[in-house]
Amino acid sequence: MSEVATGFFRSRWVGAPSHVSELPGGLPRGFRTSGVACGIKEAGALDLGLLCSDAPSTTSAARFTRSGTQSAPVLLCLERCRLEGIRAVVVNSGNANAATGLPGLEHAAAMQAAAARGCGVGGEQEVAVASTGVIGVPLPIEAATTGIETAAGALRADGDGDFAEAIRTTDAFAKHTSLEVRLDAGAVRLSAQAKGAGMISPRFATLLCFVQSDAALSAETCDLLLGVTVKRSFERISVDGQLSTSDTVILQCSGESGITVEPETGDELRFGEALDALLRQLALQIAHDGEGARRVGRVVVRGGEQGAVERTARAVADSSLVKTALYGGDPNWGRIVQAVGMALPETAPLAVDIAIEGTQVCSRGEYVPHDADALKLAVQRDEVEYEIGLPGEGAETELFFSDLGHEYITINADYTT
Amino acid sequence: MSEVATGFFRSRWVGAPSHVSELPGGLPRGFRTSGVACGIKEAGALDLGLLCSDAPSTTSAARFTRSGTQSAPVLLCLERCRLEGIRAVVVNSGNANAATGLPGLEHAAAMQAAAARGCGVGGEQEVAVASTGVIGVPLPIEAATTGIETAAGALRADGDGDFAEAIRTTDAFAKHTSLEVRLDAGAVRLSAQAKGAGMISPRFATLLCFVQSDAALSAETCDLLLGVTVKRSFERISVDGQLSTSDTVILQCSGESGITVEPETGDELRFGEALDALLRQLALQIAHDGEGARRVGRVVVRGGEQGAVERTARAVADSSLVKTALYGGDPNWGRIVQAVGMALPETAPLAVDIAIEGTQVCSRGEYVPHDADALKLAVQRDEVEYEIGLPGEGAETELFFSDLGHEYITINADYTT
Repeated sequence: MSEVATGFFRSRWVGAPSHVSELPGGLPRGFRTSGVACGIKEAGALDLGLLCSDAPSTTSAARFTRSGTQSAPVLLCLERCRLEGIRAVVVNSGNANAATGLPGLEHAAAMQAAAARGCGVGGEQEVAVASTGVIGVPLPIEAATTGIETAAGALRADGDGDFAEAIRTTDAFAKHTSLEVRLDAGAVRLSAQAKGAGMISPRFATLLCFVQSDAALSAETCDLLLGVTVKRSFERISVDGQLSTSDTVILQCSGESGITVEPETGDELRFGEALDALLRQLALQIAHDGEGARRVGRVVVRGGEQGAVERTARAVADSSLVKTALYGGDPNWGRIVQAVGMALPETAPLAVDIAIEGTQVCSRGEYVPHDADALKLAVQRDEVEYEIGLPGEGAETELFFSDLGHEYITINADYTT
Repeated sequence: MSEVATGFFRSRWVGAPSHVSELPGGLPRGFRTSGVACGIKEAGALDLGLLCSDAPSTTSAARFTRSGTQSAPVLLCLERCRLEGIRAVVVNSGNANAATGLPGLEHAAAMQAAAARGCGVGGEQEVAVASTGVIGVPLPIEAATTGIETAAGALRADGDGDFAEAIRTTDAFAKHTSLEVRLDAGAVRLSAQAKGAGMISPRFATLLCFVQSDAALSAETCDLLLGVTVKRSFERISVDGQLSTSDTVILQCSGESGITVEPETGDELRFGEALDALLRQLALQIAHDGEGARRVGRVVVRGGEQGAVERTARAVADSSLVKTALYGGDPNWGRIVQAVGMALPETAPLAVDIAIEGTQVCSRGEYVPHDADALKLAVQRDEVEYEIGLPGEGAETELFFSDLGHEYITINADYTT
């Protein structure tokens, strides 16, 4: 277990590695960030964030939504960025710049150019752009570019809090942390700022997550570690089963610590473990912040066939009936039975096993007498675990999911107008 | 258009055929029904329905959920019923008799036997059984079999209202109607009783629907017409994207009118049109009653590829973001863009067209300036239509869906306990 004071690593489902400590804040060496209000959101709320590495040799890796209606910034990043060498990132909240056609692409390019100027990086292809907010509304580009100039003047090594604040939309709280990671070669820093609440799943989310380290990693190592850890974190959460137009995750390594993480070494493993814990805890924070979520569920499915195991986990995590039961603190495991049956049609009678918080409630498709009062108490906690056994063995998966409650309705029933 | 006083055919999306008239109630000749309280539900609510045809030559057809966790009654019907000659149907509400293992199958068989005795039909294989309600709780079988005896004594030609009442669970209103259908060979009657609110989709539903006619149809014609009309009705609605363990639709024809509907005749077409309008309107009633639904949406998707069109319609209809916007009377078409992109990954930039209530809001993936105030008013009505155009032509589908609002949460957050 961890020596870390558990400010950040709060979930029982994420163990902080013993070589990782939480720092009070601030960015790894070489990075500066800022967050300003440029008028895209109402009432002076922070809505423009800028993030910059001052190290010319910065390496990076990125992942984006697979949506067929990717936002203009995502299209721009995929087409015009050197994704293995991103120096700067500019982000606005309040407007997704999606379904905005050619003008939207021009606006994203204008943001990219303004950020390149503001950060003093060589080429626009070294600047990534991200936007989150309402879809289908033209971006007020003058406000954005003016904001970028202001943000450039405000860049600070301890600006991570402002940056995290500026990328929020319906998030109930800002999500960021700074960690020290002790490698054999010495200590490096790892920090991250994320946003995400609704539209999370089935790939990673209306999730924006920016991760920085002052370790020196090759671009290939960045890409490998980010790929693996995103699969185990943001791809394993679902708030409402929706895939966003705008999901973006970027890892940047400045190398300014002077410590190099070589491939296939113990330090690569240790760095990867730290990144893994970081992204999994952030993913859980996002599920906890799932637009009014009261509780988070974890469904673990085991069985003989990976496809069936995966479909079952998705069906349970995305079931509005399971999610409302979780919200209500209701041990209604019949809804798990229903979701499993939906995921695996034409297999009846199916010998499914179900346990909730360790209590077996269903064995080979049939209810098991159990202490209903104890179970009722167990599902009142913040985190509830469901284990599902399908016939066979060898395949396993997990998903974290938000509940579905009144706050989700309130937030989403009147979001544009 | 129709001459029918529009008590039943209320939706603009279902035209009542001109040869169909609504009757004040009652069953086609040969049928009797009843509904009684047997104590499965609390507080004396009707919870056991019996339906019987007195004609030994009754023909029938049935459709069931494809769930991998089919309820005991569904398994029993599939294994032990002569589905082309169902004389009687026994239904309880308040308990789904699902995930109940071998005892559940024995209970379903006991209900079947009791109903065969009570209705005086020859063989148990002529009795279908259906149960709806909580999953994973043993059925109180003594209460059910005692209730069946009582119900048998209460069978009446005008018992359709009691029967429809007895099969309700979370339905806000009972769903039943009686129609006269004028064929060339003479007039026949068509009646139906349905229940269904939550767990509707992606196949047909926690839907129970029982349809009776006194026309004489071969079992093959019953099966053909039921198959086609179920595809166009119950398979085109979604309340919450969930598939039930218990969906059952049964059509029975007593032949007691003396009028025969021969295959491939004008009368077969006319009977089919009447059945089609009946089931579509019932499906819309179910979507309107979608556990607290305020509005119903219809999404029509056109494009070049049937699979893409179908996936897109499902993604829109099942999107909790689209559904909350519908609930809020919010013309947030960006959520349609998002759902389409989710349905069709790796296709960006996608030239999608979107119109809401006839107002084009998105053309080839880009927003179209429009009168936002007029659109805002248009989406306040009870029924809201979304048209989506994908590239290509030749494929088309539609889906009807409920909104997602506070009432759904309230109903579902505390259903078992």
